[in-house]
Amino acid sequence: METIWQNVYTARARSMSSSVIRELLKLTEQSDFISFAGGLPAPEVFPIVQVRAAAERVLTEHGAQALQYGTTEGYRPLRELIASWMRDDPRHRLPACGVDNILITSGSQQALDLIGRMFIDPGDRIVVESPTYLGALQAWSAYGPQYVTVPSDEAGMVVDALEQALRAGPKFIYLVPNFNNPTGRTLSPERRRALIEIAARHGVPIIEDDPYGQLRFEGEMLPSLVSLAAGRGPVNGAYHGNVIYLSSFSKILAPGLRLAWVCAEPEVIVMLTRGKQGADLHTSTLSQIIAYELAKDGFINQHLEVIRRTYRERRDVMLAAMQQHFPASARWNRPEGGMFLWCELADGVDATERLRAAVPKKVAFVPGRVFYPCGGGENTMRLNFSNAAPDQIREGIARLGEVLR
Amino acid sequence: METIWQNVYTARARSMSSSVIRELLKLTEQSDFISFAGGLPAPEVFPIVQVRAAAERVLTEHGAQALQYGTTEGYRPLRELIASWMRDDPRHRLPACGVDNILITSGSQQALDLIGRMFIDPGDRIVVESPTYLGALQAWSAYGPQYVTVPSDEAGMVVDALEQALRAGPKFIYLVPNFNNPTGRTLSPERRRALIEIAARHGVPIIEDDPYGQLRFEGEMLPSLVSLAAGRGPVNGAYHGNVIYLSSFSKILAPGLRLAWVCAEPEVIVMLTRGKQGADLHTSTLSQIIAYELAKDGFINQHLEVIRRTYRERRDVMLAAMQQHFPASARWNRPEGGMFLWCELADGVDATERLRAAVPKKVAFVPGRVFYPCGGGENTMRLNFSNAAPDQIREGIARLGEVLR
Repeated sequence: METIWQNVYTARARSMSSSVIRELLKLTEQSDFISFAGGLPAPEVFPIVQVRAAAERVLTEHGAQALQYGTTEGYRPLRELIASWMRDDPRHRLPACGVDNILITSGSQQALDLIGRMFIDPGDRIVVESPTYLGALQAWSAYGPQYVTVPSDEAGMVVDALEQALRAGPKFIYLVPNFNNPTGRTLSPERRRALIEIAARHGVPIIEDDPYGQLRFEGEMLPSLVSLAAGRGPVNGAYHGNVIYLSSFSKILAPGLRLAWVCAEPEVIVMLTRGKQGADLHTSTLSQIIAYELAKDGFINQHLEVIRRTYRERRDVMLAAMQQHFPASARWNRPEGGMFLWCELADGVDATERLRAAVPKKVAFVPGRVFYPCGGGENTMRLNFSNAAPDQIREGIARLGEVLR
Repeated sequence: METIWQNVYTARARSMSSSVIRELLKLTEQSDFISFAGGLPAPEVFPIVQVRAAAERVLTEHGAQALQYGTTEGYRPLRELIASWMRDDPRHRLPACGVDNILITSGSQQALDLIGRMFIDPGDRIVVESPTYLGALQAWSAYGPQYVTVPSDEAGMVVDALEQALRAGPKFIYLVPNFNNPTGRTLSPERRRALIEIAARHGVPIIEDDPYGQLRFEGEMLPSLVSLAAGRGPVNGAYHGNVIYLSSFSKILAPGLRLAWVCAEPEVIVMLTRGKQGADLHTSTLSQIIAYELAKDGFINQHLEVIRRTYRERRDVMLAAMQQHFPASARWNRPEGGMFLWCELADGVDATERLRAAVPKKVAFVPGRVFYPCGGGENTMRLNFSNAAPDQIREGIARLGEVLR
């Protein structure tokens, strides 16, 4: 019963095999588990009533358009609205950002894929943080890059180590500067400026992946890299610069809509659009017009307050429970926003083994080593605090404490 | 002001430049044009009221689920429903088709992309019809295949020529057997059986792309290739066979939802799912649950009657108008379903030149040569009859007649 398919797969496809950790995590996907393993928003804060009203309005007023094919670049009013956000948001203040700077994608995952498709030839080098976002590695695995890693600490990517990494002649630098996935870390203002300066000097572009930037619930807003790189002033009424900025509706509205955007030079948008045409023609028109209806009158900004309040409470509950239940040898951070925190166990403790021990106790997390593209991080763990309710967090952390002590 | 991006693009990305024909067609995208160039369904038949009611129900009853992340394979009840279609539809009758045979994709375009991602290494050979679906070529351009073409005539792919093409050792054979895009042609029953036999003998799998199969408005239903290849009987309660079958909700419900499916062996579904995880994580949960709500009680089957009636009328209007206005030297077919018909002008007439002449008359079509991966077809044109209303078709064909005479 051997199939002919085995001979058809590419070598890279065959190498994308299932890992031990993935198999372990599969066991934890049952409903009686308390899981800190996912990266899911709190469903309690989804604006279901507002989405329903928007869907009703969209299908009443723009029904035929919402159900028809659309342009690959995305629904123009939504692109214009996002361009206005990029101009007005104090984190960005991109004076000349316009509709030609914006591409709508089917989640940021697709934006990462399109970057891989248009930028990565097999063997190309790419600079990433270590640890880094797993979804980026999964998107790019199809294109065969080699990773050059730069370590990170509590102030984000260690920019001092970047100069060395850039000697490898990478295609681009990729990072999640705000409330990083997996670490929850945020790149410091000084390092932001240094990063822009070093990258410009070496002529290497930057991919700024920012799904969590709006989820800051305390501390000071920091300028985005895209804004820091746009120092040369407006050109032809559009943003020009060496940063591709990615953000998403998944964390500020709802991930089920699969909506995100890219902000980049018009020429880069043209290129990514060509890639997207081959990938899925365009993103759901219905999703796009619903999001536009919800966003155009400022609802998302109001709604962000609810999300931030909820996540701050959950972070605080998790930190307090960890203080109570985790061993003294463990160290963890206190992110000022986002959805994740990062915990280092004592040297020599294997977090994957601890996950195996946690399974019978019906609690889950992600062992940090999956986020290290070149190995390391065996004693680290990523904890998601957005998806579980406070009581569940207390109970789950207590169970984890038993496993870790 | 030269940018650093030029050095970042892959060679293949740079080669995906804009063509003369694409530039010409861009001119025809204004609303005062009568366009037979697109591949759009008739917006008049979108079931807007029913989609609105379904959206309302979904967001009332399953709101948190519809807005949350979902599994990469797709919404399980929708996958189960599609598996039941593949078992019960007289065109398929796949006795053992189950949920593990089905993957939901973001339109069939994404299914084509995932096949490229998992199956095509640079330089791999792929057998396609000539002419063939342009979206497949666009999806696969990122992966660097070489095309081996097999001609087609009014009975579809000329299977007699396949044996020769298979000597090149291709990874797979790709075709649109029903109401082909661009030609509107349908593969004859004899050729279907011959194709399955030859492919099996050579150990080469088949990709059966079938977005239009349900749009038959006259003539006899033909068995799908996937059903003909499933002769070995059920294995472990799932379909096993050498065909990957693709179909879509775009033509039977609404393209704006971006919903399609793959039916294949479980092992192939696992592989394509890994690819999809890197491409966009999953397809819009909201779209999937809306489609499920509409499909589960048989609405789509009823609605198909409306679509078929509408398209049959439009085809007939177009054929009558062509008879009246087109030059005697032109020849065209009479598809029994689908959305396109195919017209050959006299030898030596350049359809691209004719498009240029049509632009000032505000009427558009696609010159057939863009569908030939290895050249040819300069005197051919694809005409879409689904998207324009009957009066528009009469007027547009009259204008085209002036250009062609």
